[in-house]
Amino acid sequence: MEQKASTHERPVVGLMLGDPTGIGPEVSVKLLASPAAREAARVVVVGDARVFELGMADAGIRLEWRRVDSTRSIDWAVPGVPIIDLGNLDPGKLTRARVDPECGRIAGETLQHMIRMAGTELDAICFAPLSKAALKQGGWDYRDEHQMFAELTGCRGFFCEMNVIPEFCTFRVTSHMSLRSALDLITPERIEGAVRLAHEMLVRMGKAPPKIGVAALNPHGGEGGMFGDEEITIIRPTLERLNAAGIACDGPVPSDTIFVNALAGRYDGVVMMYHDQGQIATKLIGFAKAITVTAGLPVVFATPAHGTAFDIVGQGRADAGGLGHALRAAARFAARNARAG
Amino acid sequence: MEQKASTHERPVVGLMLGDPTGIGPEVSVKLLASPAAREAARVVVVGDARVFELGMADAGIRLEWRRVDSTRSIDWAVPGVPIIDLGNLDPGKLTRARVDPECGRIAGETLQHMIRMAGTELDAICFAPLSKAALKQGGWDYRDEHQMFAELTGCRGFFCEMNVIPEFCTFRVTSHMSLRSALDLITPERIEGAVRLAHEMLVRMGKAPPKIGVAALNPHGGEGGMFGDEEITIIRPTLERLNAAGIACDGPVPSDTIFVNALAGRYDGVVMMYHDQGQIATKLIGFAKAITVTAGLPVVFATPAHGTAFDIVGQGRADAGGLGHALRAAARFAARNARAG
Repeated sequence: MEQKASTHERPVVGLMLGDPTGIGPEVSVKLLASPAAREAARVVVVGDARVFELGMADAGIRLEWRRVDSTRSIDWAVPGVPIIDLGNLDPGKLTRARVDPECGRIAGETLQHMIRMAGTELDAICFAPLSKAALKQGGWDYRDEHQMFAELTGCRGFFCEMNVIPEFCTFRVTSHMSLRSALDLITPERIEGAVRLAHEMLVRMGKAPPKIGVAALNPHGGEGGMFGDEEITIIRPTLERLNAAGIACDGPVPSDTIFVNALAGRYDGVVMMYHDQGQIATKLIGFAKAITVTAGLPVVFATPAHGTAFDIVGQGRADAGGLGHALRAAARFAARNARAG
Repeated sequence: MEQKASTHERPVVGLMLGDPTGIGPEVSVKLLASPAAREAARVVVVGDARVFELGMADAGIRLEWRRVDSTRSIDWAVPGVPIIDLGNLDPGKLTRARVDPECGRIAGETLQHMIRMAGTELDAICFAPLSKAALKQGGWDYRDEHQMFAELTGCRGFFCEMNVIPEFCTFRVTSHMSLRSALDLITPERIEGAVRLAHEMLVRMGKAPPKIGVAALNPHGGEGGMFGDEEITIIRPTLERLNAAGIACDGPVPSDTIFVNALAGRYDGVVMMYHDQGQIATKLIGFAKAITVTAGLPVVFATPAHGTAFDIVGQGRADAGGLGHALRAAARFAARNARAG
């Protein structure tokens, strides 16, 4: 009986406060002060309690909180924010609104700690904005955080950055690399990986069956081979195989049409061939509400698309809306995960 | 005295009725029926008078018109639309809403005739939507119409497609070719050609000094060389040389930021490295009002961005707004041309 009930409980989402030089602690506190956070998930903060105190000072909000050793020992009926206090970062020693390699090093360690907790103690991970430069300078030298998460979770399959705006989601065949390198990685295997992952994530979002559009690579979709032949030799045959296997998808669709169609409701998800194809579109349509998800790993990671916003640090003006969207996405994917498993 | 007065007269724009299988004749007649057309330019139709009659039937509008031999002999005080009747296309012999190679062949011949008139009898050329497939099947086998116009005008310098939406204009370093081929054509010479042409055209549009942004090629603008080095080795040095030479331009700007900035009014013109970079953005922002200009040739060509719209041919529902924007752009560039010359 107890087991059955637990599948209907809100998922346990670990919240990481982001880089403390930026607005991460402030938006975390603002989010935790809202009823929406409690409705979406059972949230446990993982990090340094002193950074949480910093966030309360930034936000001008006092929240009740308590130290816990493990998420298993948390009595969720008790009011207040549970914090797994790693005691690893003293905000008194840092300068705000500036890239700090030590903060990057500790951010990576905190995420590593959370990844070890995932699966047993956490159902999903949500993090406030990190400084990519600080992470890199702090020794976490990856192309992007998704590569870092994949290595830390020991992922061997296809994974990718997923971008979510209210209108539609995007998935990437290639991402953070030169356009020339991306061209060499547009293979049947990677396209199949991205489309199957798009299908899986959209089903988890409640889109069943999901409407998926796959972008062409070349202008006018290659114009019958005159402007490139990847559509004919690689993309179309792969999509035909996927459709035959029951993974419905449309394409290759010229990339100057596919986002107009997605905006009009024709697609729930767009699979793009290279980074800027989708990023040009999603940033024009709705950057403020955009979130980034790492899809395809054993645990889902979600974060707002915006950054550390050094220009408004400590002013109490930061908007927690993006982090709220990220928390709800993390909870949704975690919950569906649990239900499916 | 007469010469001086003539420089203040409205320019003479040749209007080509587009492919008669589509909505071209209808939107041409609707445009000519509006006072806005007469205010922008002295318009002479070049084509077959029977196609003009077809357009009047489609539009449900009767206009006074008369045959003329040459634009020099036109008395612009006399009411009615002057038509240089080439008598080359009998609409009674064609099927509407279908690609017709013969219509494509004649469309090319009509444009060729207008190009011969340009400079002496016409100040600019405006054309209603053509069928690219019909042109190609009719023997005008070019990558796009801009290549065709360049060859017919004997242009040897840099020219490019320019896209105009109310918010900003785009210019292209490369255009209708595979993305792989485009990468090989991102050279200092072509970037300089596109930026100088952007500068010239924007000045002619009254933007002085023009605010020009130049897009990066790689994601995050190459992220300091980690995601490609064309920004470091090719684009940035070229822009530095141009700025030193008095052609102010900003960049390389990551392509998922540059259009957001342009939309916010930071740029009058965006120089893009490859076709879809700009087309994804402009089609999302404002396709209905978009027009296409061939820039850099001895005569300016302007046309609406929309196509022949076979789905609504002959129903009287076609909107002449796009052609109106194209006519005004043709007149503006022609007028500035004349004033400068």
